[in-house]
Amino acid sequence: MEGAEGIEGKAEEKVVEEISLKDLSRKLDEFAKVRNWEKYHSPRNLLLAMVGEVGELSEIFQWKGEVEKGLPNWEEAEKEHLGEELSDVLLYLIRLADVCGVDLSDAASKKIVKNAIKYPPNKLY
Amino acid sequence: MEGAEGIEGKAEEKVVEEISLKDLSRKLDEFAKVRNWEKYHSPRNLLLAMVGEVGELSEIFQWKGEVEKGLPNWEEAEKEHLGEELSDVLLYLIRLADVCGVDLSDAASKKIVKNAIKYPPNKLY
Amino acid sequence: MEGAEGIEGKAEEKVVEEISLKDLSRKLDEFAKVRNWEKYHSPRNLLLAMVGEVGELSEIFQWKGEVEKGLPNWEEAEKEHLGEELSDVLLYLIRLADVCGVDLSDAASKKIVKNAIKYPPNKLY
Amino acid sequence: MEGAEGIEGKAEEKVVEEISLKDLSRKLDEFAKVRNWEKYHSPRNLLLAMVGEVGELSEIFQWKGEVEKGLPNWEEAEKEHLGEELSDVLLYLIRLADVCGVDLSDAASKKIVKNAIKYPPNKLY
Repeated sequence: MEGAEGIEGKAEEKVVEEISLKDLSRKLDEFAKVRNWEKYHSPRNLLLAMVGEVGELSEIFQWKGEVEKGLPNWEEAEKEHLGEELSDVLLYLIRLADVCGVDLSDAASKKIVKNAIKYPPNKLY
Repeated sequence: MEGAEGIEGKAEEKVVEEISLKDLSRKLDEFAKVRNWEKYHSPRNLLLAMVGEVGELSEIFQWKGEVEKGLPNWEEAEKEHLGEELSDVLLYLIRLADVCGVDLSDAASKKIVKNAIKYPPNKLY
Repeated sequence: MEGAEGIEGKAEEKVVEEISLKDLSRKLDEFAKVRNWEKYHSPRNLLLAMVGEVGELSEIFQWKGEVEKGLPNWEEAEKEHLGEELSDVLLYLIRLADVCGVDLSDAASKKIVKNAIKYPPNKLY
Repeated sequence: MEGAEGIEGKAEEKVVEEISLKDLSRKLDEFAKVRNWEKYHSPRNLLLAMVGEVGELSEIFQWKGEVEKGLPNWEEAEKEHLGEELSDVLLYLIRLADVCGVDLSDAASKKIVKNAIKYPPNKLY
């Protein structure tokens, strides 16, 4: 039925838009399991893999001088590449937190609160 | 009423547990706005700030030799510190994506699909 | 004359073996000049280029678990690749120091002395 | 005698000025030996320590926006701090090369030659 499809489609879209850290964590866990990659996912291996991706991300910005917000003059392909490198850092970071037994959602929420106390608004720094 | 409190408590816990990348992005945007920090949040400033946090994260692991999954022998304070450094990397990464106009949720979801195609299960690598 | 050639050859070999930071700095300066690359060599461009090379260096080590000193089981090609990535980090580092007007030889010598005072021998840390 | 002191002073200054990578390597080796630190100096420990220092170096530049060559408006203390962080990266890099059995002088000299062939002068890139 069209109506039902419409509703499903919308529901799915909603899930994608508001993807949680835990959603990504579960996907990555499953990804590693079905490929028998868990043995490679030690904390320091994942950390170095993340540093590798931070390097690739930096390479995108290295010869550009100062870059404006919103990347006004970047080509679409370059923005896509940027999205992939940002994602690679994110995915290894989430996976690293997981194999360390750190709840990244919880830690990040607490860190924002801690930062808000450390840096009260309406002050000069 | 106890019952209502219980329900509220549970609902709130659910929200915290399933925090989305967009939730964090909105919080960080607000955080910068009320502190008048937006002028500092250029793409390369945020990238270098993130590299700084990757460095602090690496320092936690630097003299440990190989580290086991789950960090069995780490003290609680050290795990907490680790959670903070992982969060710092995450928060700058999300903020960097934002000021670049990259939808990180979308990019990460697509990257997982792309990786799944690149590395089919049941193959040796 | 054979004798003179021999002496020259030996002298040159000595220079290569004991290559100084300043030798490398001068070569890199010349390298950039003749390619008209000086305009790209701003401090933050070079820093990000160095971070990119640190990423490539990390990728060599990322899936290996703990690695023994001397890299006993590495293939010759992999060691060569490692030498190149270590060099890339070094060359950008030297160049970065240069464009910042920092005398890296002097700074490094002083840092070793400072570290020796901070960490006296025959103590436990 | 004044004259002799003058000569010695000059000779020493010369040595400091033209310090070689091998000089630094020997000093660092001795430094680790007399502190019984060799057991900590595995390749991946040193690599992560270096990443930590790259992070500290990046922190110096993180909120500055584009930085001019020669750092015209930096305070002396900040330049000194920069020299220390550049040195920390250098010293771990040299030590990492050493424990990997890589001759960094040789590798760096070859890399410059390789780069010169890859990027001939008088061409546009």
